[in-house]
This record gives sequence, C-alpha cells and structure tokens, in this order.
Amino acid sequence: MFSNKLFSSICNDRKKHPERLNATLERIEEVLIIVLENNAKDVIAECAKGIDNKRAYIDEQHGARIATVIEKHCTVHQVRMIADMLMDSEISSAEAVDIHETYKIPVSRLEKDIIPVRGESAWLLDNNGKAFLDMDSNYSATNLGMSNDEIALGLYNQAIQLISMKEDRVHIPRTRFLKSIHQMMPEGLTNFYWQNSGGEAVDKALKIAKAYTGNKGVVAFKGGFHGRTHGAVAVTYNPKYREPFFLDKEDWVHFVEFNDADAVEEIFKAGKAKTVILELVQGEEAGNRPADKAFAKKLREVCDKYDALMIVDEIQSGFGRTAQKEGDWFSCMLYDIVPDIMTIGKSFGGGYPTTAIVTTSKIGDSMVPGYDGSTFGGNPMAMVAAMLATRQMREKNITGNVIERSKQFSKGMDALKKKYSFIGEIRITGLMIAFELPSAEKVEEFQNVMRDNGVKVSLSTGNFVRYLPPLIMTESDTEFLLAAMDKTLAAIG
Amino acid sequence: MFSNKLFSSICNDRKKHPERLNATLERIEEVLIIVLENNAKDVIAECAKGIDNKRAYIDEQHGARIATVIEKHCTVHQVRMIADMLMDSEISSAEAVDIHETYKIPVSRLEKDIIPVRGESAWLLDNNGKAFLDMDSNYSATNLGMSNDEIALGLYNQAIQLISMKEDRVHIPRTRFLKSIHQMMPEGLTNFYWQNSGGEAVDKALKIAKAYTGNKGVVAFKGGFHGRTHGAVAVTYNPKYREPFFLDKEDWVHFVEFNDADAVEEIFKAGKAKTVILELVQGEEAGNRPADKAFAKKLREVCDKYDALMIVDEIQSGFGRTAQKEGDWFSCMLYDIVPDIMTIGKSFGGGYPTTAIVTTSKIGDSMVPGYDGSTFGGNPMAMVAAMLATRQMREKNITGNVIERSKQFSKGMDALKKKYSFIGEIRITGLMIAFELPSAEKVEEFQNVMRDNGVKVSLSTGNFVRYLPPLIMTESDTEFLLAAMDKTLAAIG
Repeated sequence: MFSNKLFSSICNDRKKHPERLNATLERIEEVLIIVLENNAKDVIAECAKGIDNKRAYIDEQHGARIATVIEKHCTVHQVRMIADMLMDSEISSAEAVDIHETYKIPVSRLEKDIIPVRGESAWLLDNNGKAFLDMDSNYSATNLGMSNDEIALGLYNQAIQLISMKEDRVHIPRTRFLKSIHQMMPEGLTNFYWQNSGGEAVDKALKIAKAYTGNKGVVAFKGGFHGRTHGAVAVTYNPKYREPFFLDKEDWVHFVEFNDADAVEEIFKAGKAKTVILELVQGEEAGNRPADKAFAKKLREVCDKYDALMIVDEIQSGFGRTAQKEGDWFSCMLYDIVPDIMTIGKSFGGGYPTTAIVTTSKIGDSMVPGYDGSTFGGNPMAMVAAMLATRQMREKNITGNVIERSKQFSKGMDALKKKYSFIGEIRITGLMIAFELPSAEKVEEFQNVMRDNGVKVSLSTGNFVRYLPPLIMTESDTEFLLAAMDKTLAAIG
Repeated sequence: MFSNKLFSSICNDRKKHPERLNATLERIEEVLIIVLENNAKDVIAECAKGIDNKRAYIDEQHGARIATVIEKHCTVHQVRMIADMLMDSEISSAEAVDIHETYKIPVSRLEKDIIPVRGESAWLLDNNGKAFLDMDSNYSATNLGMSNDEIALGLYNQAIQLISMKEDRVHIPRTRFLKSIHQMMPEGLTNFYWQNSGGEAVDKALKIAKAYTGNKGVVAFKGGFHGRTHGAVAVTYNPKYREPFFLDKEDWVHFVEFNDADAVEEIFKAGKAKTVILELVQGEEAGNRPADKAFAKKLREVCDKYDALMIVDEIQSGFGRTAQKEGDWFSCMLYDIVPDIMTIGKSFGGGYPTTAIVTTSKIGDSMVPGYDGSTFGGNPMAMVAAMLATRQMREKNITGNVIERSKQFSKGMDALKKKYSFIGEIRITGLMIAFELPSAEKVEEFQNVMRDNGVKVSLSTGNFVRYLPPLIMTESDTEFLLAAMDKTLAAIG
C-alpha cells in the first residue's frame, strides 16, 4: 500500500490516537461522496462488500480491503483528502446527529447545521471538509481559536504528571498562574476562588456577597444574563428561564431597568439589598448592549454610599473582548470603575472549563472555611491552560488586535449600513458586536446565508445578530467577513 | 556539562514544557537541602551568588552557572535527583503556600501539609520528593490515579484539533462516548445532559425534576451532601453550609431522616413535593453511611405510587466505587433499583471536570429547549477523557478489583479492630470506606501520623475517618495501607 495513513485512518492506531476508533462504512461513504462526487458510486459498492452494519467500526480485514479499493480508484491527492477527512472524524454526520437526537436531554436546541471537527486560527472545519469563519468563539470561550498547540502540549505534560487536585489544596500550576495574572487584573482585585463554569462562578459570587453583606437581597437588571444554576438564573431576567423551575418569585432578587442607578439606590436605601450584579455590556439577553458611562459611574457611587457590593459579570466580556485601548482586559476598565467582586471566564482557560470569582483581600479575607468547596476549581490542568492562554493573550497583544479589528469592522459596517438601509442599530464594543435586522426571521435567514458564504454565525438575540469572533481574527478574516455580509445582505434584502 | 537535563530543569525549555517556568533560587535551595542534607550549605551559598530575589525566575546566565556549581559538588545520582525534583516543580513549597495564603478566598480551609506534584498509579509524590499512598482520589474524581498517559495523549490530540464546543452542538467526541457508555448505565437511563461539576449536575437535575413534575418541592435527607450552588446546597443538610447565604429556609426543601421512606410518603401524600434526592451511600456529611436495603426498595415503591421522581446522586459513588459484584458501576445496582434521574461524576472524566444528569427518554424528552444551556458541558476534551477513562475502567475490570481490595481491606480491618478496641463502627461498601475513632481530635491525629507513615488521608466526617482510594489500588498497596494503619493506631492508641 502507498498510504499507511489511509489504512490507519480506517483502522485506528490506538497507541497514536487513543481518542479515535475505527471508521464506519457510513463515514467512508460520506467522505467518498465528498471527494469523488459523482464517481463515488462504484467505489462505495466495492467498499461495502460483506459489511452489514454501516455504523459498526470496521475490522482490520475489511479495513485493509477497503484501503486497497480506495487506492485503486483514487488519485494520490484524493487518497490524502480521504485519509485527512477520516482522521478528522471516523463517524458519519448522520450518525452523529442521530446519536445526539436520541440521547440528548433537549433542555437546549440541538444545533446540527455545522458539525465542527477542527479549528485553525479563527476558522472551523466541519465534518464535510468545509471551512467557516467563526463568529461565536463558543460564547467567548475560545477567544484564541479552537485549537492550540502550546496549550495542548502543556495539558499533555500536566496530565502525565498530576491531572487533578481540589481547590483547597496548594499546588504548583495554580501558584504559577497566580504569580502571572495580577498584571491583567483591575487594581485591588487580587483574591481568587476557582470554579468551572460561568453560572457556577456567578452562583458562588452571590453566596460570597450575601455572606459578606449579611443581606440576602440582590439587585439585578432587566436584560441581564448570568447563567443557569438556581442562583445564577434567579438573577437572570428572562422569565422563561426561571418560571418552569419556580425561580421567578425569589424574594431576594430585585430587577430594575438597565442604566437606572436611582432605582438601585432606592432598593439599597430601603435595606432590601446590599448587592448589585450586572454585565457592563449586556450580552446574551440584551444583544451586546453597553451600559451608559454615567450610569456605571453613578452605580459605583451608590454602592460606595450604601457600603453595598458591585458584582460585575465579565464571563463573556473579560480578557480583551471589549478593549478600547491596549491593556483593557476587562469591560470595567472602559468605564474606569473597579467592581468589588468580578466573575471571570470563560476564555482565560483557552477552551479548558475554568472560571473564577475575584475580589479584594478585604472581602476575601472575611470568608470562613466551610462556606464553599470545589473538587475541580482551579485544578492543575485548568491552571496550566490558564497560564498559557493568558500569556498568549499578552504576547500576541490581543487587546491591540481587538482595537484594530473593531475599527476595521466598524468602518465596513458603516458602509454596509449605507448600502442596506434595513440594518438598524449597530453595537460595537471592541469585538463584542451586534446589529439589528428587521425581524428575528431575517436574523435566521441571515445566519443561514452566511453559513453558505463560509461564516458560522449562531448567536442572536431577537432581531439582533450577535458576533463574538475569536480575538485573534486577522485583517483578511475581517475583510472576508465583511464581503460575506455584503453578499448575504444583498441576498436577503 | 554532563547534564542538559539539569540545565533545562533550571532554565526551562519552553518548546518542550510550555507549562513550566525557570526555577527560583528558593526552590533550588529547597531541593539541595533534601538531596544533600547537611552538606547543602556551601553549595547553596555558591549558587546564591549575585541573586537578590530568591523567588525570581533565574535567568540563563545564572542558570548555567548554578548548573556548573551543582555538577561540581554532586554525584551523578544526586544531579539526576535534583533535576527530577526541579522538573516536578520549579517553585518552592514556601512560596506556593504564601501565594495561596495571600490570594485564596478562604471559603474552604487551605490544605498545605502535602503539596502534590506527581501521581503514579495509586501514589502521590509531593514537592519534597516524598511518596504517599492516596486515600482521597480527590473526592473520588481520580479513581484511575492522578496521572494517565493515554488520557494525556487523547487530550493532546483533541486540543490540537478542536478544544471546545458547547453542549447544544453536535460533535464527534461526544458521539463516540455516547456509543460506548450505555453498557455501563442502569437499564433505561439513556439520556444525558452534560455539566462540569457535581454541584452543577445536582442543581440542574433539580431543575429538570421541578419542570417535569410541575411541583417545586423536593425531599432531601439529613446527612446528605449534594454540592454548593444555590440549588445543590439547599438540599444539603448541614445548616452551616446554608445559613450564611440565607438558604436555610427554602420553602421547596423538606428534610427527613435517612432511611425513613414513610416520612417521604407523607410529604408526597400532602402534595408538598414530587421529587426526592439522595445518596444511597451518604458520603461527605454522614461518613460513607449506606442506606438500608429495605428503605431503598420502599422508597422506589413510594416514588412509583405518587408518580414522583427519585434522583440518586452518584457523583462520588458511581463508576465502580461501591461494587459488590462485577459490573456494579453504580450504587443503585447494589440496591437493585433504577432511579428516574441520576447525577454522575466525577471519576468518569479521569480527572477532567465533567459530570452529567442521566434520565429516561420519557423524562428527557419532556424538556423544552430554553430550559438550560451549557458552554462547557460535554465538550470535546471532556468527552475524549470520558471515553478513555470509562474504557480503561472496563478493560482493567475495575469493579473486580474493587471487590478484591474491599475484601482484603475488610479482613485486615477486622484484625485491626480486634487489636485496637477503640475503633468503633466500620463501614465498607466496596472502596467507599469509613471507620470511627473516639473523637474528631483522634481522627486528626490519625491522619497526621498516617502522613508520617506514607499515607495521605485528608477526608473525615466528625469522628469518622473516610477513605476513597483510587480504584486501581493493588494488593500490595492495600497491604501497605493496613501496615501503616497498624503502626499509626498503635502510636495514637
């Protein structure tokens, strides 16, 4: 055989790729149709001989036979393409969708239009070998892109050394990260408690605030989104996210209009709450809507006046996403305020699930052992990923790139707005972007045509399209995006 | 220089070890004292020349000089030891502790007696090069041990391919895992919703149960522990974990005595709740106390009678920990009951933070998109780790080993009890073990002396010592453990 690579893409070499399995016939068929197009039929028939179950993992004997069949019928270039696609995934798209549809608890809508198998810089490759520019970054979790050689190697080294350790035990990777992270944090926010998800970080931040203030009340804003645990969803405005779980009448939560600091003051004054939680750029629920500068300043004053705590949720906005000047690692830096507590995530793990609550030493030190505990929070793997991701952010001057790309996009968007008058409001804070189309249906249509034009856009809020692209996106990526938008807007206009 | 390894343990080769940094002088001193003991003084003085900040990362020039000094004064064997220890950690124990004490929010007690740097099978190596048999498994999260070559390689391959993807999008690693996991699950529990931590899984299981039953009430048991988010801690009995956060008077939670199915029935009958949550072996809070068989059976009947949901929390007990016969992957299998909802973790990720809610297709399919959502749940890295960890569990016949080691330990424990009459109640369910000592102070003393005897025991509940050893522990490990216990009990008796 010319190509061992082809054979091992069918019959997996477990020593090299423990995470893969042997290919299925259905996947081989799928790949052959993509690579050979109309000429696939006969090859497929020959490959299929003697195999009953299209979704079973092919054994060595059939694997060797199929490799020979493919080599006989295909050019060297085609053989390579086939092997690459099988290495990306040994399972067919149809089976992947079926398995998810059968076994997923549908608390969220299954997305199956693009089945991503590989990331490279700001791009994704799907199971059909198509490339898409990524406008989602997995909710701002993969701001450095969807694959990372250095983080991969760091995680490998750590996993053969010490794969886990609980939050309350001293370990070295966390020490390293703590030594390096302070340079990026707002002044005075020095103390950390580690969690895994955004919702969890918010949930625990609320616990810390309640314990510190001795007041169970929390003010939250209409249009805010903070996560899905009992605590996090209680301060999330959308009633649909709370009602089915009887979390819509929590006596400790007080919702007020966004940008209304007076309403917050009133509640503080009445003693009903001593904590306020907000996103300075309301993301998920309000469509990347930035707070007014005067409001943010006033809110800080109100909190100081009543000795109340301001929690700023930077889960999506943090680590450069909203930068206006170099070194703006958090959205609170645009507003020139320092929160008392900040929740941070998701991108500082470079894709590894890690989040944190950050606060001052004064608030931190008032906590009491027994208040909380975490098995996985700040574990060695998470901390390796975090140290490497944040170092890359600094070395790549991510905030500088955000500023450049934001300007470039802004300019392009102005031009598009002139051309397509049905574009409504445009919101651009760094690379936390949204713009309005006439209806939610138009947004869906826009997303579908963008997909055809090579851009993955799956985030939206009502009639707002939302972009959270990887912060490493380049000038030419941005050009590609704007050109795709032009084409798409023309098509749906 | 003879040893490039020594030099690169001081001045790190970032290409090979992106996760490490250059060593500090303080760490080199620490290592020299361990390796050279009383002869370290002069070498240390020579190494320190011209370096002001003992905790700064040493530069190349000083690094080369220090390597030469060490080689001049040490044997080849000593040089190797020094290099190995520096590779394990380039930061001193004192600095690691200081950094944690300064920057940790102390919601939990900082554990600093052992600073683990490396795991091998059931053993841990600490920053001083001492080995400890691990009786904690990071709360049953690392049942396969603290390092894993195959999982490391799988994670590496996945991280250079696709490091993240949200719960609601189809991807290949999750498809693979779903194809392989059903053989281990209780009959009928086929549908999954993915989370990251144990508390999060419980929190979301409660949401699913509330939405399904249309009843906000939940019965929980005294002595139960389910996690720390607002939802999970509300059903956790210890009032100290709830009071500071005003979560001790939740109207939807009803605590009853453990093993009392009649009390549950009463609450169901009154319509106050339609869900019950329990650990079949109450871990953290009650000291690994198993439920009565008759109670479990009765509780299942009561749930069926009132069309109520039984949630069994298998976060710590799952994946073989409690096995009595081969294939007992979950504690519910010992009781011959199938829950309606099960929360699973932590060990099935082999150390990677991943948990899940598992339920029937009937309950699962009644959920509505929008009910929840997760950025990191069931992400590609987690699913690679999970596929590999669960395959290893099956291939290593983990449940078989649990049964053998449990018998061996049980026999040894009987002998110890005869010898040391102050040992009280003994609880052994597979390798979920606890035994009573006269007081909580004795427990602490026991743990301290065990540490001196090479065993890490950090879990306890009042006057119960708790063991959750890695499920791969061997016959000779168990002999070592029993011998260490004998020595320790004699010392503290």
